[in-house]
Amino acid sequence: LEKFIMTAKTVKDLFIHSLSDIYSAEKQMTKSLPQLARAATNEELSAAFKTHLEETQGQIDRIDRLVEGAGIRLKRVKCVAMEGLVEEGREQIEEIEQGPVLDTALIAAAQKVEHYEIAAYGSLIALAKQLGETEAATLLAETLEEEKATDERLSLLAEQKVAAEALGK
Amino acid sequence: LEKFIMTAKTVKDLFIHSLSDIYSAEKQMTKSLPQLARAATNEELSAAFKTHLEETQGQIDRIDRLVEGAGIRLKRVKCVAMEGLVEEGREQIEEIEQGPVLDTALIAAAQKVEHYEIAAYGSLIALAKQLGETEAATLLAETLEEEKATDERLSLLAEQKVAAEALGK
Repeated sequence: LEKFIMTAKTVKDLFIHSLSDIYSAEKQMTKSLPQLARAATNEELSAAFKTHLEETQGQIDRIDRLVEGAGIRLKRVKCVAMEGLVEEGREQIEEIEQGPVLDTALIAAAQKVEHYEIAAYGSLIALAKQLGETEAATLLAETLEEEKATDERLSLLAEQKVAAEALGK
Repeated sequence: LEKFIMTAKTVKDLFIHSLSDIYSAEKQMTKSLPQLARAATNEELSAAFKTHLEETQGQIDRIDRLVEGAGIRLKRVKCVAMEGLVEEGREQIEEIEQGPVLDTALIAAAQKVEHYEIAAYGSLIALAKQLGETEAATLLAETLEEEKATDERLSLLAEQKVAAEALGK
């Protein structure tokens, strides 16, 4: 989602548009994840955010490679949906004191981000396949698997450690 | 995500807050889905949006029942993340002419909404279980399954019919 007017007339336009959007979203996450890592009290959660920051930087590099390989040029757009999702995490950090309840809220906020990305990469893979861009589809599928794994890691944390701590609260 | 200040001090506060947020999100979807159904050219896609509108109304009723059963009161909040996601669909309807490329864009926008909801209900179920609200957890799990099924239906449409039509474009 972006603020500029979109003129997608073909599947390829839509692919470039959607790729530019997720590129913006990932860039935003590289700024948000260090804040989430600092705000988290549970050490495993903090470590999960740091690991995902490294993954996110790799995902940005992967888009750069994909763009080069496919000979396309990304548009300068700002993903405002991700802006809203990042804002959610920031508000929670401001409003809830550090501890297990904040940790639970941060996990929920981060899982919304992961699911935004899971949906976005799923659609991008479908578009890449339609366009016969098999190399791009393979690269995007690698990122999709990382996003799914992060989501699952966060679910486990929510159900186990952090949950027990938050209830003790 | 909402515009008001959140003061979640306990897991229960967070549960009520998150439930109020998804309630707002679902209400917004009841206004957006008829627009998506009208904008879609592919008949199966249009029908999928209409079916999901009925489901969404059932999901709102389910939250009403849950709130009554758990003896809690929802807060008046507006989910601005969903506002952004709905806006994405609306922009695409304005900017892309009706036909298979728009249909593809509408599917992608709707899948982002579904994934937002999948993440939100997943977190709500974890919170309900922590609070020992098993009846609430069961109701929320029914909705989660509907959201996942809708997402899968949209994926199938993206990969099959609509894709073939969009490429012919």
